Amino acid sequence: MNSNTDHTENHKDAVFSVNETSSDLEELTNSCNDYSKSLLSSLRRRILTSDEVVEPGTLNILSAKYESLDYDTCENHLLLDEERKKGTKYLIKKNLQRWLVFLLIGVCTALIACSIDISIEQLSQVKYATLSKCVDKFIVEGKLYIPYFMYVAFNIIPVFIGASLVAFVEPVAAGSGIPQVKCYLNGVKVPQVVRIKTLIVKSVGVVLSVVGGLAGGKEGPMIHSGAVVAAGISQGKSTTFNVDFGIFKHFREDHEKRDFVSGGAAAGVSAAFGAPVGGVLFSLEEGTSFWNQSLTWRTFFASIISTFTLNVVLSTYHGVPGNLNYPGLLNLGQFERFSYQIYELPFFILMGSFGGLLGALWNYLNYKLSVWRIRYIRNKWLKVTEACLIAALTATVGFLMMFLINDCKPLGQDPTKFPTQMYCGDGEYNVLASIWFQTPEASVRSLFHDPPNTHNALSLFVFVIAYYLLSCTTFGLACSIGLFIPTLLTGAAWGRLVAVGLLQLFPNATALVHPGKYALVGAAAQLGGVVRMTISLTVIIMETTGNISFALPLILTLIAAKWTGDFFNEGIYDTHIQLSGVPLLPWEPPPFVHNIYASEVMSHPVVTLRTIDKVDHIVELLHLTTYNGFPVVDPPIREEHGYPTYGRLRGMILRSQLIVILQRRLFNETCEDWESISSSIFRDEYPRYATIDEVFISDEDKMFTIDLRPFMNPSPYSVLHSTSLSRMFRLFRALGLRHLPIVNDTNEVIGMVTRKDLARYRVCRHRGKIVVEELLISKEL
Amino acid sequence: MNSNTDHTENHKDAVFSVNETSSDLEELTNSCNDYSKSLLSSLRRRILTSDEVVEPGTLNILSAKYESLDYDTCENHLLLDEERKKGTKYLIKKNLQRWLVFLLIGVCTALIACSIDISIEQLSQVKYATLSKCVDKFIVEGKLYIPYFMYVAFNIIPVFIGASLVAFVEPVAAGSGIPQVKCYLNGVKVPQVVRIKTLIVKSVGVVLSVVGGLAGGKEGPMIHSGAVVAAGISQGKSTTFNVDFGIFKHFREDHEKRDFVSGGAAAGVSAAFGAPVGGVLFSLEEGTSFWNQSLTWRTFFASIISTFTLNVVLSTYHGVPGNLNYPGLLNLGQFERFSYQIYELPFFILMGSFGGLLGALWNYLNYKLSVWRIRYIRNKWLKVTEACLIAALTATVGFLMMFLINDCKPLGQDPTKFPTQMYCGDGEYNVLASIWFQTPEASVRSLFHDPPNTHNALSLFVFVIAYYLLSCTTFGLACSIGLFIPTLLTGAAWGRLVAVGLLQLFPNATALVHPGKYALVGAAAQLGGVVRMTISLTVIIMETTGNISFALPLILTLIAAKWTGDFFNEGIYDTHIQLSGVPLLPWEPPPFVHNIYASEVMSHPVVTLRTIDKVDHIVELLHLTTYNGFPVVDPPIREEHGYPTYGRLRGMILRSQLIVILQRRLFNETCEDWESISSSIFRDEYPRYATIDEVFISDEDKMFTIDLRPFMNPSPYSVLHSTSLSRMFRLFRALGLRHLPIVNDTNEVIGMVTRKDLARYRVCRHRGKIVVEELLISKEL
Repeated sequence: MNSNTDHTENHKDAVFSVNETSSDLEELTNSCNDYSKSLLSSLRRRILTSDEVVEPGTLNILSAKYESLDYDTCENHLLLDEERKKGTKYLIKKNLQRWLVFLLIGVCTALIACSIDISIEQLSQVKYATLSKCVDKFIVEGKLYIPYFMYVAFNIIPVFIGASLVAFVEPVAAGSGIPQVKCYLNGVKVPQVVRIKTLIVKSVGVVLSVVGGLAGGKEGPMIHSGAVVAAGISQGKSTTFNVDFGIFKHFREDHEKRDFVSGGAAAGVSAAFGAPVGGVLFSLEEGTSFWNQSLTWRTFFASIISTFTLNVVLSTYHGVPGNLNYPGLLNLGQFERFSYQIYELPFFILMGSFGGLLGALWNYLNYKLSVWRIRYIRNKWLKVTEACLIAALTATVGFLMMFLINDCKPLGQDPTKFPTQMYCGDGEYNVLASIWFQTPEASVRSLFHDPPNTHNALSLFVFVIAYYLLSCTTFGLACSIGLFIPTLLTGAAWGRLVAVGLLQLFPNATALVHPGKYALVGAAAQLGGVVRMTISLTVIIMETTGNISFALPLILTLIAAKWTGDFFNEGIYDTHIQLSGVPLLPWEPPPFVHNIYASEVMSHPVVTLRTIDKVDHIVELLHLTTYNGFPVVDPPIREEHGYPTYGRLRGMILRSQLIVILQRRLFNETCEDWESISSSIFRDEYPRYATIDEVFISDEDKMFTIDLRPFMNPSPYSVLHSTSLSRMFRLFRALGLRHLPIVNDTNEVIGMVTRKDLARYRVCRHRGKIVVEELLISKEL
Repeated sequence: MNSNTDHTENHKDAVFSVNETSSDLEELTNSCNDYSKSLLSSLRRRILTSDEVVEPGTLNILSAKYESLDYDTCENHLLLDEERKKGTKYLIKKNLQRWLVFLLIGVCTALIACSIDISIEQLSQVKYATLSKCVDKFIVEGKLYIPYFMYVAFNIIPVFIGASLVAFVEPVAAGSGIPQVKCYLNGVKVPQVVRIKTLIVKSVGVVLSVVGGLAGGKEGPMIHSGAVVAAGISQGKSTTFNVDFGIFKHFREDHEKRDFVSGGAAAGVSAAFGAPVGGVLFSLEEGTSFWNQSLTWRTFFASIISTFTLNVVLSTYHGVPGNLNYPGLLNLGQFERFSYQIYELPFFILMGSFGGLLGALWNYLNYKLSVWRIRYIRNKWLKVTEACLIAALTATVGFLMMFLINDCKPLGQDPTKFPTQMYCGDGEYNVLASIWFQTPEASVRSLFHDPPNTHNALSLFVFVIAYYLLSCTTFGLACSIGLFIPTLLTGAAWGRLVAVGLLQLFPNATALVHPGKYALVGAAAQLGGVVRMTISLTVIIMETTGNISFALPLILTLIAAKWTGDFFNEGIYDTHIQLSGVPLLPWEPPPFVHNIYASEVMSHPVVTLRTIDKVDHIVELLHLTTYNGFPVVDPPIREEHGYPTYGRLRGMILRSQLIVILQRRLFNETCEDWESISSSIFRDEYPRYATIDEVFISDEDKMFTIDLRPFMNPSPYSVLHSTSLSRMFRLFRALGLRHLPIVNDTNEVIGMVTRKDLARYRVCRHRGKIVVEELLISKEL
């Protein structure tokens, strides 16, 4: 006992104990500048109490409900044993299996994309052919209200089914799914996001929503589908269906699963746009933090396979089996090689900025609308009703436009499928009807490729405004639908409008001012302004239009759009992520945080376990706390109130591991067959572990002890309490950590830093200054 | 003193002292499996003694001469002060400056590329026009030896100058420069690699080499030039010219400089191939370890600017100013949209594998040749002579081919610039002469775009063999020349040969078997087989031929080539890197190293400094050791022989920082103006610090002390001695570290791990098994 006291006194200055924390904090506060003082003053109330009301729509509060994924390998004795036993063959087999899984991901994602594609096309054809015929039939009889009501009904019925599916079966399937996939790849466990139920609701839902005529596209949901497919295949089992194929067992951990999901997302992009390179870049730009060449390569492989499968199926569907470069396979149609002149570039940049402005406004409106939805549309039936109302509104707007604007063009000039005459003369068709009586994707193709003079300025102008607002109200509905296509459509329409205007100004410039070219630039500008991606978007647009010579103007446009938009607000995906309070870690640590230290950021006191601990104690801890990781320490040097408070860091153990150990009753006193225990016991339960309430522990069991050493991660990354926030951030981000134990000078655990502690510091612009704001954490959000 | 002893005894088990290391190691050895035992047994002799001879050409020895770059920010008090003082404005300014630098990098890289392009074209035109005319003139007189000797002379003279420049002025400018840039981006300080002298030699050298008719291209050197330009501009000063513009001072550190260099390399690719997206992917695939979105975006920006500038200048040069999508701007010519059928894909894959085989053989031959060169061509004059001989050989081979193979085609069919009649009839020209009498790049264009039946099988066959061997002997000469183009040329030739063969077999398939298509596939296969890149290469080929519809066949070909090639050996760049013994860190830690611990890998005993140390001691340490980083420790707990051996880790200080502190005489006793000291004192000296011998320290100075705390990095990443090799590897790679102090349980420094300690473990395939081999380190290599 004497030597213990001795030790404590000797290291009085070095030991940074729990009791001393608050006084040390004050000392630090005094030594820091005013700026960090103001930071520190708010530090003590980082979690909102339950009676504090969270203002709906706030962007500055993190939700406490999101857990992190764990990308760090637990190098415990079991893993070492496994490696030793299995050797090279196992390694090669695992590697081959990995390639096989990526192959399967590519194929399955493409097949799902094909089904969605073909279903939408077939159903839409029936719908719009009927409508077109009816309009022309009843217009003669003066009973235009009949096709109108048919249009409304044709919109409402599928949307009703789709929205009900989303609202009642799987709410996480709403929207495009890209924000959710982005969060997952960033390391946040979004509940349900990669479940098979989500996949089914998502893919059926997107068909119904698009057929229902909503202003949305199928691309986002396809990307999400790819991610789910990847997560499903790589695990070789489905908990929903309670099937375990017993294959790919070694991929049952967060790290491997993440890799597959990033491949799946890429395959999804690849299937949605026929853009394999764009897919890889998308999964990099939106998700990855650590660039890994071999992973990227496998991702690329999945993308290629996906495009390949898609093209094989679709070429057969289009009646040209095997002709993989059939131009009809390009989603947005094949562009001729545009020529452009250097003096057009500034003009493209201007259009980009304009797109950025429009996009920022779109994001703002959508944000306000989302806040309103969070506040008032809380009931599931209300959500379905809202979706149906918007579907009816879409039909009404469309019908009014073709009814009121008499934009007629002679037949034969435009490759429209269902020419509708409306009030036009014989041998003519109503241009607006041809735009509305097809899927939005087909409309984008029309605007890109219709010959000049197909559309007049007025109809384009009205269309832009109508579609801009419609797409804005549609995104965020309880429907599985994306925003790529409607945004492209809005942009293509105003781009074409610009071309019409230019041709009015310079009637001789017909050779240069091709409306399709301007439609493309407008579409890129609008999309860039809304989603703020650059590299992947450039490549996706290049690939999906089969046009590479136009790369430079596209990139300039996209950069201008992003910069202009970023001046006002965040991209739409990030806005929605912030609305949900997801603790997303940005790419780089915020500035000005070199003088915020681990001791200020960490949670403490920290709950620890001993290397050999009582079952009783473990069960109690699991019941009392919600922590997911526990530092394992040597029996502590001093005890307070007869209870260990801290000790020297020996390892880290996860809640899930403890649960499995308790379930399997791996107690020192009773377990006999130690030989049979391997890493696979944890994989078998992955990813849905029981809760502690579901584990039965008898009173007798509670007397036993557990030796945690074979199971724990024996050398977790840890840092000193004097480490700066930016260093912790880099460590966390680069290595994909979930927990970071903070130790004092003698390697005793004094605190714990998790994702939320780091994500709380966010850069924002405040009156022209860059400041670091501190978010609060709410358990209610 | 008593309490100290007490402490030591209490922690006997925990303290892992220097003296105990060897016995602990043995203990560990016994507890490990046989595999790691064999590893450990060799661990004790990791550095070759000076009398051990390094076999020339070994791939299994690391050179001790390469230092690491330091990407970790030193968050010392000075930096915190600076941040506090300068605030937001400084941050915004720095950010804007960063964009400006990337803009400048793009412009300058493109301008250099343009000069190289235009010089080569002009000089080659003169050369080949003269030759062509001479041949046709002297053939009538029967004096063919005259044009032959002219050809030889025209080859030897520029090559002689170019090789002399490389051999005598800047040897690091030899070759393509891509391996060197790759090493730099990986974090290895390759001496001279980003110096302005290198840039000059490189760009003049490449013009001379290509004009000299060597089987090489200008692309690699252009990429290297981009990297140098980036390093130069971003530093705002040139040590070579002793000019300091006083700008961009804040970028004077390894981390910032690396970012710029990766942008420069991308801009280089972009300028060389007109492939901005390919450029970004290249710099990612070959260099980056940590994916950073904003960096990637700036890299993209530089690439775009580079392509843009290049196209503006070249379009003006070609007489179509401002027409940026003039097809002549595409290096390898614009491809028509090929159609391909699904049943052609397996055939493309076969061709890919064949390319992989040829590539692996090429690499093997080149490796053997390089070893021979290392052994025998050591003298500078010998190097120059060798280059001249190869130049003469190239001329001879070319001349013999056009002399011996009478491949005549009627004029007008082929867009050759200088039709040479040779022995052909009137109105005909010699096809081989038209291939040889132009730059290799132009020959690639010919093979890609010449109409069918331009080349007959025999001439193609001979050409493939000749060029294959020539390009193999050329790579590795003391000339600044790359291998992209000759490899593409070889591949294009055998690809065309395949098409000729196919047309013989299926005479009716003329619609499908376009020789240009097969030339493209062959070129991709050959290049993929030699360099083993996939993603970036696909995109580069797509961009440089303006052809996107052919992406899928290209990717399949490249993957097949890479897999086949990887079965036999490494890519040519990696082989050359291994030959130089550069400690490159691969993407992932080797397998089976979970049970190798820091305590086994680290260097020890470690030389430490105290937080306040005597000048005398510091100078002595700097003189005695070659270490670049020193842990700063608290006054140690026990002393041995009156000398501190280890203590509790407080920070890390670099040799360069110590030098600057000594130079500035920042001694506790004498320095008065502490206020004026800021981080900039270190930046001012970056990157070439004085050696300790150049710092004058008087005997009086030696009595003073230095307080290291304001200068040191106060919270370096450190790990416990029980951390596994794979964890250390991941930490090192993800964070770009240079030094990793190893601590014991009470946070006392017991060892140091550097890049070489980790790079020593390399995966290799040995009789079908994947094993981890341990490399030795040599100070001689």
